Amino acid sequence: MSDDQELGITESKEHSTGEWYAEVVQKAGLANYGPDGMSGFIVTRPRGYALWEAVQNALDSRFKATGVQNAYFPMLIPESYLEREKDVVEGFDPEVAWVTHGGYEELEERLAVRPTSESIIAPYMSQWVRSHRDLPLRVNQWCSVVRWEATETKPFFRTKEFLWQEGHTAHASEEEAWSETTTRLDQYEEVYEDVLAIPVLRGKKPEHDKFPGADTTTTVEALMPDGKSVQGATSHYLGQSFADAFDITYTDEDEEERVAHTTSWGLSWRALGALIMTHSDDQGLVLPPTVAPEQVVIVPIWQEETKEDVLEYAEEMADDLRGAGVRVELDDRDERNPGFKFNEWELKGVPLRIEVGPNEVEEESATLVHRPDGESLSADREGLVDTVQDHLDTVYAKLYASAEETLSGSVREATDRADILGTIGQHGGYVKAPWCGDEDCEAEIKDQMAAEIVLVPFEGSESDTEPIHEGETCALCDDEAVETAFFAQSY
Amino acid sequence: MSDDQELGITESKEHSTGEWYAEVVQKAGLANYGPDGMSGFIVTRPRGYALWEAVQNALDSRFKATGVQNAYFPMLIPESYLEREKDVVEGFDPEVAWVTHGGYEELEERLAVRPTSESIIAPYMSQWVRSHRDLPLRVNQWCSVVRWEATETKPFFRTKEFLWQEGHTAHASEEEAWSETTTRLDQYEEVYEDVLAIPVLRGKKPEHDKFPGADTTTTVEALMPDGKSVQGATSHYLGQSFADAFDITYTDEDEEERVAHTTSWGLSWRALGALIMTHSDDQGLVLPPTVAPEQVVIVPIWQEETKEDVLEYAEEMADDLRGAGVRVELDDRDERNPGFKFNEWELKGVPLRIEVGPNEVEEESATLVHRPDGESLSADREGLVDTVQDHLDTVYAKLYASAEETLSGSVREATDRADILGTIGQHGGYVKAPWCGDEDCEAEIKDQMAAEIVLVPFEGSESDTEPIHEGETCALCDDEAVETAFFAQSY
Repeated sequence: MSDDQELGITESKEHSTGEWYAEVVQKAGLANYGPDGMSGFIVTRPRGYALWEAVQNALDSRFKATGVQNAYFPMLIPESYLEREKDVVEGFDPEVAWVTHGGYEELEERLAVRPTSESIIAPYMSQWVRSHRDLPLRVNQWCSVVRWEATETKPFFRTKEFLWQEGHTAHASEEEAWSETTTRLDQYEEVYEDVLAIPVLRGKKPEHDKFPGADTTTTVEALMPDGKSVQGATSHYLGQSFADAFDITYTDEDEEERVAHTTSWGLSWRALGALIMTHSDDQGLVLPPTVAPEQVVIVPIWQEETKEDVLEYAEEMADDLRGAGVRVELDDRDERNPGFKFNEWELKGVPLRIEVGPNEVEEESATLVHRPDGESLSADREGLVDTVQDHLDTVYAKLYASAEETLSGSVREATDRADILGTIGQHGGYVKAPWCGDEDCEAEIKDQMAAEIVLVPFEGSESDTEPIHEGETCALCDDEAVETAFFAQSY
Repeated sequence: MSDDQELGITESKEHSTGEWYAEVVQKAGLANYGPDGMSGFIVTRPRGYALWEAVQNALDSRFKATGVQNAYFPMLIPESYLEREKDVVEGFDPEVAWVTHGGYEELEERLAVRPTSESIIAPYMSQWVRSHRDLPLRVNQWCSVVRWEATETKPFFRTKEFLWQEGHTAHASEEEAWSETTTRLDQYEEVYEDVLAIPVLRGKKPEHDKFPGADTTTTVEALMPDGKSVQGATSHYLGQSFADAFDITYTDEDEEERVAHTTSWGLSWRALGALIMTHSDDQGLVLPPTVAPEQVVIVPIWQEETKEDVLEYAEEMADDLRGAGVRVELDDRDERNPGFKFNEWELKGVPLRIEVGPNEVEEESATLVHRPDGESLSADREGLVDTVQDHLDTVYAKLYASAEETLSGSVREATDRADILGTIGQHGGYVKAPWCGDEDCEAEIKDQMAAEIVLVPFEGSESDTEPIHEGETCALCDDEAVETAFFAQSY
C-alpha cells in the first residue's frame, strides 16, 4: 500500500464534486494521470480495468446472444478514407492524432489514429455484403480511440484516448435497422440499470445534435449527483447515407440491387465515470456487488489469545463463500488494525464487510455491514452464504433506489425561458419544456448557461409523460410546439 | 456467402505453402488485407477474431488464476520515454509509427504508437512499488502494437499492427522473478499444447538474441509444416536492468531500500498463424474443437418426401448437443445441396460433421465424419452427446499426434557446418549441434542460409536429450562446446 492510499478522501462530494471525483479515482486505485506532457491520457490501473472488464462482459454476452460478432480493424486510417466520410458527414472535423512518419520515412499519406471506425469498416462491409443472405451483418469492435480535444482531463469522462466498443451493422430494410438500433439501446439501458445500478432516461437527440450522417441518434442519459446529465451510450440509425456513400448494396430475392440500411452504436468507459460519480461518497468508492472486484471483505478482529480461533473461523467462512462463487477477500494482515482495514476497504468500495471476533466465534454468527450506508446487523453462521447473497442484493437495491430517487426528483417542467434557466440554475437536473424543434431556440438557452437539449423522449415512451398537445407553443418562441425537450447541463 | 468463398482452395500446402496459407486465411473468412496503401495491416474478420478470443480466454483465465491483473496504459508514448529505454537497451531502434500532429497543431514532442510498453509501464511500476508488501506486482495488458517494419504482409505472422498481450511484473528477489518467468512460459506451453494442439519446444534464446535489456529470454518454438520454426511466445527475466533504469525500488522488511527484479512476457496473434498453418490442408482450415467457433455441423440430407422427418430429427439432435454445451451449427439451408455444404464447412474448419438422412432417422443413428482425415462412422442416436464429446476429443488427439509426429521426426543432429547446412537444406526442421556460445559461429550459418539458433535447451530439460559433455567441441569452431544449439529457419 503506497502512502497516498492511507490518507483517505479529503474533498467533499457535495461541495467540490470535481476535486472529490479526481481524488476517489486516484486513491481507490482506479487510474493515474498520464505522463507529463501527455495531458488527456490516463493509466487505467487493475482496480479500474476490472470495472471495465465487468462492463465488457455484461455487454459482450448480450451482444453475442443477439447475433453480434466481434472483429478487429486497423487502428490507423488513411486521411483519404476520412475525407470520404466527409462527403457523408457535414461537420466532420479531423481533430485526430496524425501519424506522419513510419520509422525514419515520411509517409506518402498521413494516417489518423482512429477517432471512430465507420470510414474503415464501411468499405469492408461493402465487400462482405453481396446478397440478402449476407444480411444482417453485425460486427463489433472493442478498442481504444483517440480524439484530439484540448480540454481538462477528467478520468473516464474526458480523455484524449478512451476505451469503447463500436458496433456496425447492415440490414435489408429500414424496419430491421431501426429494430437493431433499439435493441442495442435496450441493452445499454439494461447494463446501466441491472449492472451499474444507474437508472437512465431513454430518448433521441434533437436533429441538430445527431451523430453526423445519422438519420436518428438515440441515447441513454444518466443524471449525475451534481445535477448534470451524462450521455451514457448512443445507438444510431444511419439510414442509407453511409450505405450510399460506401456502396453497401445487396441483391434481394428477386436479384434486384438494393442499398442496405446501417446502424452504429457505442458505449465507452464513460460508463465507469458515471458509475464512480453516482454511488461514491466522502469515504471513497462505492460499487454495486455486480461489478465489485471484491464483493465481500472479511475483517477478523482478534487479541493475541483469540487469534487462532478467530482466523480459523474467518478462513472457513471465506472458503464457504468462495465455494458459492462470492468474490471474497479475507484481510488477515497482521500489521494493520481493524479500523485501518475498515477505512481502506470502504475507500475501495467493497459492498459488504463481515466482521468476526471472539463474540461471533462463540455465538456462531457474523456481523454484516453494508458499504453504502453503514447499516450493520448480526447474522447466523448457519446459512450465511444465502444470507450474504441476499444482502448483496439488498445493497444493489439500495444503490439503485437512491439513484432512482435522485433522478425522479430531478425532472421538472418549465414553460418559458426564464423558468428553464431558473430551474436549471437552482436545481440542476432535467427541465422538460415544449419545443418547436428549432435549434435557435436551444441556442438561447446555451448562450445563457451551459445547458442544452440532451434528449427528446420517444413518442409514447415512459419518459414521454407530458406529450405535446395540439396548439401548445414552444417555451422559447411563439411557434407551435412539436416535441418535449429535456434541457440539462451536460458532461 | 460471397462468391470468392464458393471457390475452394486452389493452392497446395505442400508445394506453395505461402500462397496456400494466404488463400486459407481469406477464403475461410479469417482476415482480409488492409486498405490500399496500408500494406502490413489486416482486417480480422469475425471467424478470425473468434480464434483470438479463444486464445485470450485460455490465457487470461490462467493469468488471473496465478495473480495477474489486467490494466491499460496509453497507446502513445513520448519519444523521450523511448529514449530513456535506450539507456537500458542497446540496439533499440525506433521503427515505430510517429504521431507528430494533434488536430491542426504540431506537437512539441512526437509520440510513438506503442511498439511495446516497457518504457511507459516501468515508470508507473516505480510509483506503485514502495514497500515489499507491494510485491509481487503483476500487470498485463491486451492491446495492439505497431512496428514499422517493411516486409511482405503475412496475416497473423507478419503485420505492422498486431494484437498481443504484454505482461510486466516486479518481484523482491531474483528467485521469484525467475519463477514468474517460467510460470508464464509454462502457461504459453499449455495453451499451445492443450488448446491449439501444437507441441512446442522450450528453451532460451542465445545471449546475442535476447530481448534487449533482458537477462534471459525464454521461448516456446513451434515447428511449421514447411520446416520453419515459429517463436510462439517469449518470457523474459529482465534482471535488475529495467528496475535500475526506471527506479523500481522497495523497502524490505528491515526498511532497507532494494532494487526489484522484473519480468515481461508476451504472446501475439502469431499463435493464430501457427494454428492455421499447422493443421489446415488443401481443403481449407482445420481447427481443434477447443477453439473452433462451431465444433459440430449437422448437415441434414433429404428428399422432398423425407424433409420434414429429417429436419425434425436434426433439430432435436442440435438442441441436445447445445444443451450439453457443444457449439453446433445446423445447416438447413434450402438453396444449397449437401455436397456444397460439406465443402463449405470443411473450408471453414468445423472439426466434426454429422450427416443425417432418412436412413439415420429410421435406424436412430447418425453418421459422424472427422474433419482432419475424413474418417466416417455410424453412431447410435442414444447417448449421442457423449459420443460426440468423445469424438471431439479424438479429433483433438489426432491433430496433436500428427503435429507431434512431425516435430519428433524433425529434430536431427549434426556435428559440423556442412552437416548443419545440408540437413536444414534437405529436411528443414531443427538441427541440434554442440556450440561454443559465440555469435560468430551462428553467423557462419546465417551467411549461408537463412537459419539461426532458435533455442538452447534448459539444462536437464526434456529437449536437452544430448547434454554437452566435457571436452566436446563446437560444431563450427575448435573451441569447447558449452551448449546445445537448435538451428532452424525461422518465421
